Amino acid sequence: MTNIPSVPVPLSGERFSVVYRLTASDEAEARDKAWDICLEQTVEFPDDLVPNGVIRDHILGRIESFKQLNAYRFEAVISYAVETSGFELTQLLNIVFGNSSIKPGIRVERLDLPDSLLRAFKGPRFGRDGLRAWLDASHRPLLCTALKPMGLPPKELAYLAYQCALGGIDIIKDDHGLANQSFSPFTERVQRCAEAVAQANRETGLKCIYMPNVTGPANRVIENARFAKQAGAGGLLFSPGLAGLNTMQQLADDDRIGLPIMTHPALQGSFVTSSDDGLSHFVIFGQIARLAGADATIFPNFGGRFSFSREECASLVEGTAVPMAHVKPIFPTPGGGMSLARVPEMRELYGRDVIFLVGGGLHRHGPDLAENCRYFRRMIEKM
Amino acid sequence: MTNIPSVPVPLSGERFSVVYRLTASDEAEARDKAWDICLEQTVEFPDDLVPNGVIRDHILGRIESFKQLNAYRFEAVISYAVETSGFELTQLLNIVFGNSSIKPGIRVERLDLPDSLLRAFKGPRFGRDGLRAWLDASHRPLLCTALKPMGLPPKELAYLAYQCALGGIDIIKDDHGLANQSFSPFTERVQRCAEAVAQANRETGLKCIYMPNVTGPANRVIENARFAKQAGAGGLLFSPGLAGLNTMQQLADDDRIGLPIMTHPALQGSFVTSSDDGLSHFVIFGQIARLAGADATIFPNFGGRFSFSREECASLVEGTAVPMAHVKPIFPTPGGGMSLARVPEMRELYGRDVIFLVGGGLHRHGPDLAENCRYFRRMIEKM
Repeated sequence: MTNIPSVPVPLSGERFSVVYRLTASDEAEARDKAWDICLEQTVEFPDDLVPNGVIRDHILGRIESFKQLNAYRFEAVISYAVETSGFELTQLLNIVFGNSSIKPGIRVERLDLPDSLLRAFKGPRFGRDGLRAWLDASHRPLLCTALKPMGLPPKELAYLAYQCALGGIDIIKDDHGLANQSFSPFTERVQRCAEAVAQANRETGLKCIYMPNVTGPANRVIENARFAKQAGAGGLLFSPGLAGLNTMQQLADDDRIGLPIMTHPALQGSFVTSSDDGLSHFVIFGQIARLAGADATIFPNFGGRFSFSREECASLVEGTAVPMAHVKPIFPTPGGGMSLARVPEMRELYGRDVIFLVGGGLHRHGPDLAENCRYFRRMIEKM
Repeated sequence: MTNIPSVPVPLSGERFSVVYRLTASDEAEARDKAWDICLEQTVEFPDDLVPNGVIRDHILGRIESFKQLNAYRFEAVISYAVETSGFELTQLLNIVFGNSSIKPGIRVERLDLPDSLLRAFKGPRFGRDGLRAWLDASHRPLLCTALKPMGLPPKELAYLAYQCALGGIDIIKDDHGLANQSFSPFTERVQRCAEAVAQANRETGLKCIYMPNVTGPANRVIENARFAKQAGAGGLLFSPGLAGLNTMQQLADDDRIGLPIMTHPALQGSFVTSSDDGLSHFVIFGQIARLAGADATIFPNFGGRFSFSREECASLVEGTAVPMAHVKPIFPTPGGGMSLARVPEMRELYGRDVIFLVGGGLHRHGPDLAENCRYFRRMIEKM
C-alpha cells in the first residue's frame, strides 16, 4: 500500500448536513450505506487508504445521527465541511449527491445549510413578496397560463396572450416546448407576445406579465434573456433540467436582467419518480430551486395527469418556504392538466401563497378565452 | 371550448424517432401511455383540443410501431418532426423526455436521429481515433487514474500525478470532487499537476496527459478550460449532471480550447437507477454524451462498488459506438472501485477500445505508486 500523506488543511470547522433516507434489508446494511456515503461523497477512497489527520477527521463525511424509520427504511444525517462545497452550486450538489445518485436506495430528503455556506448564494431576486409587488397583487393567489400548442406561429400565440391578459391572468408564460423553432422563432415570438400583453394592459389597467422561455444553449441564455427584457417581457421561464441549474443561477444573479424567474421541471422527473432513490420533492423543487435563484417553481399537481401525491406536493411547498437565512421563500406553481373545477381543492392545500397554472383547461370552459380567464380570476378572488 | 386556429407550419417532413420502453399492467394501458407521450412531448394539450391540420398531422408525436416485450413491458417507437427540436441539444432533450421524465414507467431506450438533425451537432472533437492519436497509443486499451483524496493540497496531488505519469499512465484526471476549494484552489492545482506530468513526460518520453476538472459555475467553465490549456493540461474533465450537457457542448465546440473531454456521471445516476424509468445507459452515457461532445465517458463498472450490471455496461458500450453519421464513437471508461485484479475480466467485455480507470486500487498493489502503475501498464500491454 502506498503512503498517502496526512496534511494540514485549513478548515473553519463549520459543517452542513444532508438528511438521507436509506432503503436496506436491515440496520447493518443501512449503517454500511451511511458510511459508504461519507466516503463516496468526499474522498472517494477505500476506508483503509484514507489518511489519518485532517482528511479523516474533517474532510470525510460524518454520520451525525442514524435512526430506523420502518422495516426497510432508515434515516442518516451526514455532515460535510462547508469548504468541500467550494461555495458554489455545482460542487455543493456534487457533495450532496454526485456519486451516490448512482447507487440505489439512497434518497436526499433535506439540506441543512449554515449561514456561512448560504452567504455564497444570492437566491431568488424577487421571492414571494417581490413577485407580489412586481404584479401588484398583495394577497390573493396568482394566476398563470401557458401559450400553446407548439406549432402555432408567433402571431397566433400573441393573440392568445392578448386574450388571456385581457381576461386578467397575472403571468402568461411560453409553453416550455416553445424554444427557437422555425415555426415560432424566439425573437419574433417574444416581441409579438410582449407587445400583445402590453396592449392588453393598456386596455385593462392591469399588470399582466409575459414570461418567455429563455432555455437554450448555454451561450445563448443570457442573450435570450436580455433580448426578452428589452422587448418588454416581465419575467423568464427556464428549465434547469435541460440547461443547467447553475445557468439559471447566473441568470438570476445578473443585474442587467433583473426579471423574476419561473422554473419548469422538464427532465428533472427522474430525480423523483422513485420513492427509494433520487432527491425529494422538498429538495429539488424547493430548496435547490431557491439556491439556483428561481422565484416560482412549477410542478405537477396531485390528481392531474402526472403522479405526484398530495403529500409530495405538500412537502414540496414546505421546501419553497423552509427558513434558509436570506434565501427568500418562492411561489409553488402547481400545474399539469389542471381544470378550473379543481381550483377549490387546490386552494385548500396551497392556501393563498400559490400560483395556479392552468393551461389547456382554460380553453375548455367556454368559447371565449378572455371570458374563461375572467371566470378563473373571479373564482380566485371570491375565495 | 375555444377555437384554436389550424395554421400552416413549414415542415420538411423529416422526423426523428425515440424508442420508449413502457411498463404497464396491460396492452391497453401501454397504448394509452404511448399516445400520451405523443401529446405530452409536443403540444402538451388535451387530445380533443389539438387543432386539425399540420399541428395534429405533423407536430404531434406519431406512434411508428408498438409491441409487447413481456407481461408488463412494451416498446413504442415514436417519431417527431425534426423541427420541433429547434436543432439544439436542450430542446431535443425536451422533446425526447422533458415532461415524460415526470411519469413513472417510461424509459428512453434509444434515439434514431436522421442526418438532417445530426448536422446540428459537431459531436466529439477527438473521438476514439483522435484520442488515440493525441496519446500516441494506436491499439492498446488506455490507462487512466484519478488524483485523490479530496483534502490533499496541490503540491501533494502534483506529486501523485508525477508518480503516475512516471509509471506510464496515459490519462491522469482530477477526482471529480476536486473543484475550486480553499484547500486545493483550481489554478494552483492545475499549474502544479500539469507541470508535474510534463516533467515526468520529459523523463519517460511518454505522452501522459493531465485532465483537470473544469466543472463549475456556468460563467466560469470556459475560463477554467482556457486557463487549463494555457497551463499545459492535455484534456478536460467535466460533469454534465452538475453543470449542464449544453455547457459541455459549448466547451467541446470551442476552437480556442480544442482539448479532449472526459465526462463524469455525477448526479446523473437518478436517470438510470430504476429499470422502469429514466434513460437507458445506452442513451445517456453513450448517445447523449456524444451529442454533447464528450470523447470519453466514465461509468461505474459492473461488479465494482456501484450497481450497474454486466449487460447494462455492454449496452452502454454499444451506445458509445452506434453509428450516428459524422458523430464519432467515443471511449467507454469503466471505473468505480476497480482493482487491478479485475482488469482481465474487464478486458474480456470491453476489448481494446476502452479506457481503464483505476483510482484507489492503484495504491493497493505495493508501496511504490510509480511501480504499481508500471505493473498496471505491463498487464495491459501483455494482453
